[in-house]
Amino acid sequence: METIEGRQSVFAALQARQRRFQMILVAHGAHVEKFTEVMELAEQLGVPVRTADRKELDQMAHGASHGGMLALAGPKPRLDGDSLVEVVERLGRRPAMLLLIEGVEDARNLGFTLRSAEALGAHAVLIKKHVWDLDATEIARPSSGAYERLPLVQIDSIDPLVKVQRLGCKLYGCIAGAKRTVFDVDMTGPSVLAIGGEKRGLSGAVREICDRFVTIPTAAGGASLSMSHAACMVMGEAMRQRLMKSREQAALVPDGITDPL
Amino acid sequence: METIEGRQSVFAALQARQRRFQMILVAHGAHVEKFTEVMELAEQLGVPVRTADRKELDQMAHGASHGGMLALAGPKPRLDGDSLVEVVERLGRRPAMLLLIEGVEDARNLGFTLRSAEALGAHAVLIKKHVWDLDATEIARPSSGAYERLPLVQIDSIDPLVKVQRLGCKLYGCIAGAKRTVFDVDMTGPSVLAIGGEKRGLSGAVREICDRFVTIPTAAGGASLSMSHAACMVMGEAMRQRLMKSREQAALVPDGITDPL
Repeated sequence: METIEGRQSVFAALQARQRRFQMILVAHGAHVEKFTEVMELAEQLGVPVRTADRKELDQMAHGASHGGMLALAGPKPRLDGDSLVEVVERLGRRPAMLLLIEGVEDARNLGFTLRSAEALGAHAVLIKKHVWDLDATEIARPSSGAYERLPLVQIDSIDPLVKVQRLGCKLYGCIAGAKRTVFDVDMTGPSVLAIGGEKRGLSGAVREICDRFVTIPTAAGGASLSMSHAACMVMGEAMRQRLMKSREQAALVPDGITDPL
Repeated sequence: METIEGRQSVFAALQARQRRFQMILVAHGAHVEKFTEVMELAEQLGVPVRTADRKELDQMAHGASHGGMLALAGPKPRLDGDSLVEVVERLGRRPAMLLLIEGVEDARNLGFTLRSAEALGAHAVLIKKHVWDLDATEIARPSSGAYERLPLVQIDSIDPLVKVQRLGCKLYGCIAGAKRTVFDVDMTGPSVLAIGGEKRGLSGAVREICDRFVTIPTAAGGASLSMSHAACMVMGEAMRQRLMKSREQAALVPDGITDPL
């Protein structure tokens, strides 16, 4: 059983309908008005809501940032390779944007990355098996609900990658020293954007099947980008390219992205 | 007196020559080979190096990630508005890229943002006064040395912004709901990129003097970008625009950015 902490995460998890809820706990004396939306959805879905002492919530939670609400629920299901194929097939003619992250070491940075992945229009995030050992609550909190809403796929081998490549996805490996920048490679088609860990970069197995390598140009002598910022930059560039293409073709706006022009 | 933790941060701080060092501590039994470069620079600069028990280092440090080296030093100096003007003037014809951050609440996220600012070619980062209350060591650690190397300017009013505007810098305010995306606005000239805090956005005082507002398009119904990822996206786009322009004009490559093409 995992704890889901804070109104925003609990609401996102209820909406996503992916976890098995045991119950929702609300602190005595909390301003219930702000929880109305959550309570109504919980009632619809038949999830019991109990009140409890704030101290009890504090003990169950990681710190005191739950704001008076937490839920007990089963883990978020991990999708497998076949489900990933379904995600891509369901998109039809809309080009997939998938993010593959290798070697994450920090739950919070993963959470921020998921948040950006959702915001920038990614359809699923592929994560290696060991990453699932990270604390789910610590990932969920900075993700602003994206952890609950985004399809997360557990990758134990390159097989799922090869499967989506057969469906037309190109695998772009982001590595230092690649000959082309992310700005010079067309990522408007179905894409898997692969970002390595900060210590070891992309694994040999993934490198071997990459269709293209790309690099983010950075200032000489300075730091490189962190994993989560590199992921954000590459997804942002893919989104920019898709947005520009959609304007030219007056069609195929990147999934869900709102263009103010 | 502040502690600077880890070989990388200590080396960056020595190189930057901005802080007053009291001494450098190396743990008994640490692999001294990896510290050779630091020790040589310390000797050149006349900074004493002592050995100490690892336990002593652990007690002085925030956690145990110091890797056997830490330094005691005065704080990194905060630049004022006049120094900011100097930074911009010293660039000559090279267009300034300055990052203004308002409302940061988390030292680590600020550290990651400084790291990306340096990597993406920013010349200085402007931070409001209250941000300086954050723990300097917690900012420095995730910054990979960028905290030590980047000019940091303390902004108590809009005066320094007005001063650099008079020098030709355009102030771009990143806000939700702006009519133009960051991709539609030319940021190749001298620029201040202003990112608000996640709770309140940009302050009214800064908004009032913005030359242009820009937005990062995101997927409807999903999360927005975190402050640090938004800063990364906007700086990345400014860098992309400058890189593309430098190729067209075969001149003025963005400061220090290495173009693999």
